[in-house]
Order: sequence, then structure tokens, then C-alpha cells
Amino acid sequence: MADARRNLLLTIAYDGTCYAGWQRQQNAPTVQQTLEERLAVITGGPVLLHGAGRTDAGVHAHGMTAHFHTDSRVPVAGLLRGVNSMLPPDIRLIAARDVAASFHARFDALGKTYVYQLLWDEVMPPHLRLYWAHYRPLAHLPAMRECLAMLVGSHDFSTFEAAGSRDPAAAGRGAVRTIHAAAIAQVDSCRAVVEISGDGFLRHMVRNIVGTLAEVGQGRMSVADFAGVLRGRDRSLAGATAPPGGLFLKRVHYPQSPL
Amino acid sequence: MADARRNLLLTIAYDGTCYAGWQRQQNAPTVQQTLEERLAVITGGPVLLHGAGRTDAGVHAHGMTAHFHTDSRVPVAGLLRGVNSMLPPDIRLIAARDVAASFHARFDALGKTYVYQLLWDEVMPPHLRLYWAHYRPLAHLPAMRECLAMLVGSHDFSTFEAAGSRDPAAAGRGAVRTIHAAAIAQVDSCRAVVEISGDGFLRHMVRNIVGTLAEVGQGRMSVADFAGVLRGRDRSLAGATAPPGGLFLKRVHYPQSPL
Repeated sequence: MADARRNLLLTIAYDGTCYAGWQRQQNAPTVQQTLEERLAVITGGPVLLHGAGRTDAGVHAHGMTAHFHTDSRVPVAGLLRGVNSMLPPDIRLIAARDVAASFHARFDALGKTYVYQLLWDEVMPPHLRLYWAHYRPLAHLPAMRECLAMLVGSHDFSTFEAAGSRDPAAAGRGAVRTIHAAAIAQVDSCRAVVEISGDGFLRHMVRNIVGTLAEVGQGRMSVADFAGVLRGRDRSLAGATAPPGGLFLKRVHYPQSPL
Repeated sequence: MADARRNLLLTIAYDGTCYAGWQRQQNAPTVQQTLEERLAVITGGPVLLHGAGRTDAGVHAHGMTAHFHTDSRVPVAGLLRGVNSMLPPDIRLIAARDVAASFHARFDALGKTYVYQLLWDEVMPPHLRLYWAHYRPLAHLPAMRECLAMLVGSHDFSTFEAAGSRDPAAAGRGAVRTIHAAAIAQVDSCRAVVEISGDGFLRHMVRNIVGTLAEVGQGRMSVADFAGVLRGRDRSLAGATAPPGGLFLKRVHYPQSPL
């Protein structure tokens, strides 16, 4: 039975460094719990957030989304101000809006965009260490670009899925996902940003793609090798999982206008 | 009597968030002490660093410099690798080189360049919070630019000096400093970076300049007001000290080629 109460959709940014990921856990600080506690104060009742997905421990977000039902009549602007004034500075509400009672942050999402930040300075600059992953020189960006282009379309991404981690809610479609766009942009002589949009992502999929892509960037794997790895549907063929700190959930896409 | 031993000049980057500044203190973690302890392990003897200056608690550096004398014959590359492998990730040695025994990181410095990062998004993005200072909209960048241009040259900067904090080593020249360049560059619609180079800086000088400049950027002080504040030589005329997290010591300048 759907909850007929007021339904609020939130856009949330966070620095995941100090959290065990988005999703509430028994014995570890999570973004969901931290946010739910402040929302409960402002709305005057318990809050259960339904996130658009999960992010792993240490992963960041520019635009995670989540909805919750409430009896509170608090105006959206007051909610934003009030919750942000109580949150630790590593979590911020970016936007909130009323949506239809039936709206679901996860089931209504058309897809997501992730960004992964790569750096290959000889020494990791301290002020970038929490948001950029440190790699040996990635000298073969054109080859990395070719590999990313190869991902666009519908593929079985078993190769890039964390072992034993299939999302139960998505079991029906197996490991097939559709990637809408995948690109790499060079920022300066030793930094580049990978951006991937798709209708869904398996657990660790972006980080496993990036870890394998880094092998190509370092000249240790060819574009043809990468194609074989993708086709192989075998996690053991892929590169090491890229560290969580380089990854940002940039945006969750919905049929209607962006938040 | 000058120390005739080997003299090494270091370039150091750090995230100052967790430190009580550069300079060693009795009961608080500092960058100097953290670095000295690791250098002592690698060089096999006690190390006393002579920094090019101090940075306050929470202030960052891309290129602080410091020298120390040692009997160690460790090659520079080994020193860099060894020390960086022991340091916490918020401090990194960027470079090291042998210099003349008489060289002094502070007394041989011609000047320094500081950078201050300003942001006026409605909400502070969590991943920028440690390195950008949050201000109300700075809509008057051309006026800020005019004020910065006014600083270039030799002036008595008493207005922008922290009360009761005159650096004893610089007492001879009072509060007169020479600014070589001062500019503001807009990064995007709600971010800008101020860069100031000069032969020396009074305590809190850059942060007090930026705090006053923000008043101009917000339209609460005119360019003429700013000129009066500078001429007034009275700290009470200036704006609030800008927070430490937006400030980076970018570079220390020496007569010879940069490190």
C-alpha cells in the first residue's frame, strides 16, 4: 500500500571519506542515518529515506537523491536551511522538492552519472588526496577513450561486477546494463576525469572499469585486451578495483526536469 | 657560527586542516614536528627545520620551504621517497636539493606567493569545504580587482596586521611591505581565486586583506572605502579575518631558479 502522505525528494552532496557508505548500518556511521536523524528533528517525526541507490564506503556524491514521506508541513526552504544548519559539513542538502506520493527515488530513476577523478603526479598533492585516485602515469589517454567508447550500449558487465554482490532488486536483468555515455577528459598534464552515464550500475562496476582502464592507460593492456576482458564476463580478467575516494555519484536522472 | 654540514632545502605541500600550523609547539600537532620526526629517521640524527616562515593553524601549503643541516649522505631521491612513505598523507615532500652551507630558507627568500580560494555557492559543496572559504555572493569582482591593484607597491600594512603580532625578526621595517602582484581570477559563476605576491607578509595579512575585499565584493564597502582603510593603518577599519582553510602558501621565491 503506497504511503499517501507528503513526499519529498532530496538532492544530497557528501564527502564520503568518514562514512561507511550511504546505506544505514548497525555499527558504522552512514550518510543515510546522519541525514535521517536531522530530518526527524525538522519534521518532528521519524524519517525513513529511500535512496536512489547505495554508495560504498568512502565514495562521494554531488547529487545523490532520496525521498521520504512525512506529515510535516515545513516549507522546502526552511527544511533545507534547518537541516543544513544541523548536518556535519561533510553532508549538505542541495535541493528538496515536493513530488507525487507515488514517486520513488530509486524505481523512478532512469539512470545515473558517475565521475571518477584520476591523478598521476609523482607525489599526491595533499589537498587532492581525498578526491583523486593516485595512479602511475596514464600516458595512453586515446586508448582509454577507445575502451570507454566500447562500453556504450547494452552489455553483460559481469567482468566488472564485485563477486557475490548482485543487487536483489535487479536480479531479473542479470548483469546486463545500458551505458549511455562514457568519456575521459584531461584536466591538465597529470589529471583526467572519467564520466560514465547508464541506466544502472553493478556493485563496484565503475571502480572496476576504471581500475582496468588504468592498465590500458599505463600501456600494460591493449584496447583489444580490454575488449576481451569485457566479453569474457569474468571478474578475474579485470584490473584491481579503483579506490573509493576518486568516485563521485554526480547525478541521478529522472523522466522530469532535473532537480 | 654557521653550520658547515650538508644543507638540504625542502619544498613541502600540506593540508593544514589537522595541524596547529607549521611551527613546532609544545602541545599541538604541527607540520614542522611531523616532518622533523620522519627526517630524523631517514637521516639517522635529530633534525631542526628552519622554515621560510610560519603558516597559521588550518592554513595549507603547495610550496612551503625549509632547510636543515645533516651529516647524512642519503641521496635526495631516497630521502624524498623514504620520508613520503612515512609521512601521513596530508603532508608531502615535493622536492629536495642540496644548497650552500650558508643558505637560509627564510633569510634568503625574496618573497612569497599566497593564494586564497573564495566560493559563494548558496550551499558549500562538501568536497570543497576544507579548501575554499564560503562567502555571501561576491558580485563586484571588478571592484575587488581595483582594490587589489591598489595594494601593489610599498605600503604600511598596519591595517591588515593581526593585533600584537609583529614578527620580531622583521621589526626593523615596521609594517611596510612591498606587494609585487595582486590579482583575482574568476573560476566559475561562484568561485574566484585571489593571488598575492610580495616581499613579506605580516601576520594574518592575506586573510585580513581578503576579509576586507569580501566586503567590497558584497557591495558593502566601496573601492574608495578600501583605499581609506589601507591608508588608515588601523586594524579596526578592516573586515573580519578570512578563515584559514581558504589560504595556501603557494610558493617561496629565491634569487636562484625555483626549486
